[in-house]
Amino acid sequence: MSRSFLVAARGVLASIGVLICLPALAQTDPLPSWNDGPVKKSITDFVARVTTQGSPDFVPVEQRIATFDNDGTLWCEQPFYFQMAFAFDRVKALAPQHPEWKTRQPFKALLQGDVKTAATAGEKGLLAVVAATHSGMTVPEFERTVLDWLRTARHPRFHQPYDALVYQPMLEVMAYLRANGFKTFIVSGGGMDFMRPWTERIYGIPPEQVVGSSGVTQFRLLPDGKTELFKTPMVNFIDDGPGKPVGIYNNIGRRPIIAFGNSDGDLQMLQYVTSGSGARLGLYVHHDDAAREYAYDRKSMIGRLDKGLDEAKAKGWPLISMKNDWKVIFPFQK
Amino acid sequence: MSRSFLVAARGVLASIGVLICLPALAQTDPLPSWNDGPVKKSITDFVARVTTQGSPDFVPVEQRIATFDNDGTLWCEQPFYFQMAFAFDRVKALAPQHPEWKTRQPFKALLQGDVKTAATAGEKGLLAVVAATHSGMTVPEFERTVLDWLRTARHPRFHQPYDALVYQPMLEVMAYLRANGFKTFIVSGGGMDFMRPWTERIYGIPPEQVVGSSGVTQFRLLPDGKTELFKTPMVNFIDDGPGKPVGIYNNIGRRPIIAFGNSDGDLQMLQYVTSGSGARLGLYVHHDDAAREYAYDRKSMIGRLDKGLDEAKAKGWPLISMKNDWKVIFPFQK
Repeated sequence: MSRSFLVAARGVLASIGVLICLPALAQTDPLPSWNDGPVKKSITDFVARVTTQGSPDFVPVEQRIATFDNDGTLWCEQPFYFQMAFAFDRVKALAPQHPEWKTRQPFKALLQGDVKTAATAGEKGLLAVVAATHSGMTVPEFERTVLDWLRTARHPRFHQPYDALVYQPMLEVMAYLRANGFKTFIVSGGGMDFMRPWTERIYGIPPEQVVGSSGVTQFRLLPDGKTELFKTPMVNFIDDGPGKPVGIYNNIGRRPIIAFGNSDGDLQMLQYVTSGSGARLGLYVHHDDAAREYAYDRKSMIGRLDKGLDEAKAKGWPLISMKNDWKVIFPFQK
Repeated sequence: MSRSFLVAARGVLASIGVLICLPALAQTDPLPSWNDGPVKKSITDFVARVTTQGSPDFVPVEQRIATFDNDGTLWCEQPFYFQMAFAFDRVKALAPQHPEWKTRQPFKALLQGDVKTAATAGEKGLLAVVAATHSGMTVPEFERTVLDWLRTARHPRFHQPYDALVYQPMLEVMAYLRANGFKTFIVSGGGMDFMRPWTERIYGIPPEQVVGSSGVTQFRLLPDGKTELFKTPMVNFIDDGPGKPVGIYNNIGRRPIIAFGNSDGDLQMLQYVTSGSGARLGLYVHHDDAAREYAYDRKSMIGRLDKGLDEAKAKGWPLISMKNDWKVIFPFQK
């Protein structure tokens, strides 16, 4: 094939590309579930600044790292963290093998459906529940348990599978950032193992881009030459508060340029992200929509946003109002 | 623009694509520094099996994970690990601030250039050297130190910068796997922080795909609102031996389908990778070329390959002979 023919063909291509793409870009809103306003504009302006060649704020593709908290930022976290709902359901499922739980708190209360009494056992009680339900099995066994639970369990208020209670506007933000060359990561206080089985399907985030809290995992060589990773009850890493920048460092190794959170547990991540040089954006999802979801901030036991709310106001971090900025909350409402 | 014109243009494009690409693929050897033979064929056959649509061994792109040990697998590790050479040079550079090192082992010996005596201090002595040279500074400060060292330090035998002593045939394997949809990761017993500053430039592997040993990092909020990650002397994770499958789980979350190592420290990674279901390949680089590099295995202090050599033979894992399978060792010999 002649070189001139190839050059001509490439020219045809390029012009088709321009003609096809430009009107498409102009017509399609990448964030259709967001109401127009300063918060939506802060996101699209930021993306334009860091992706425009020649802009003083231009950021090369490989440095476009975006991090997202999960509970309360990408999916609902009320009336309590979904991983707690999972753990409580697992206590019920495992009870026949643990007759001692009938008299031992907080298991006794959980088996009676009395979450309030169970909660009085505090952090130590919760850790006992997590250890009893998240260890003593291999990684694939735990993964199957999580997926089975997602198929069958329903949220008490919305009567939907828990993984249907993700925020449609945030799905759009993640897709929009990826379309602009960003690599999207979850950085959550929740369990890494609890998220990885479904984040690729639901969020488009693969397991290797999920940073979370974790237990100590053990490698075992079995007599038949097979191998397994076994989940022990020991804590390995707590990816919350000041642990989030550390988790980002351990698992990503670059400072993100944009981050989304919703609670004081995300404050250090937002401080870390926004204090870097160059264009940076940190945003808080503010739960102010009791009608369509929940309204809580400074006084909530789950997902408290208190110090972070003050700092967001002081530093001018955009506060995403679920009530005013989002046309819909969940995909099933579209 | 009419729809039929677009369809026609797409047809032209597609046919150009086929005409350009097919001869190119047929003519270009993706592994030009490898001698033809069973080892090279084991790699190209494996890639063909897992990437051929409809093949019983086909693996979707997102599951094509490849892991590589670093020291002795991607770059040279003799006469001792390059990170040790870095640490010893740092001891010399930092000595003026540490007059006590003049009388304290193993620092005293290192300052006299006597590595043999320093080595008698054993693991405890080595850990003291690592702590003294790898902590007490921020992550970017450490990164600059590593990059400065790579620019100035020279290997005692090859008189080249240490990052020039990477294996050309392995650079080709990484590029070949990536061209076939694989995501390439380093999984090394070496320090994560020591590798990340240069792996993207040298290997094409970004920081977030570098798994290694690490110290405990601390997040700090400074009075001016800036933030930093500070390297403490505490050990966080040792990514070696049975730690490698655990490091893979913590940082990747999927079982790789192909892995390369060179020592007993890689044995558990190879066991883990090759014992999964479906097509799997684990390979050992065997250092058998004293003339062009080094020859060592069962009795070496650095990069010992003893149990792994037996297991490779028993299980039929390909042994890459540097002497027979590689046309050149280092890029500067091309």
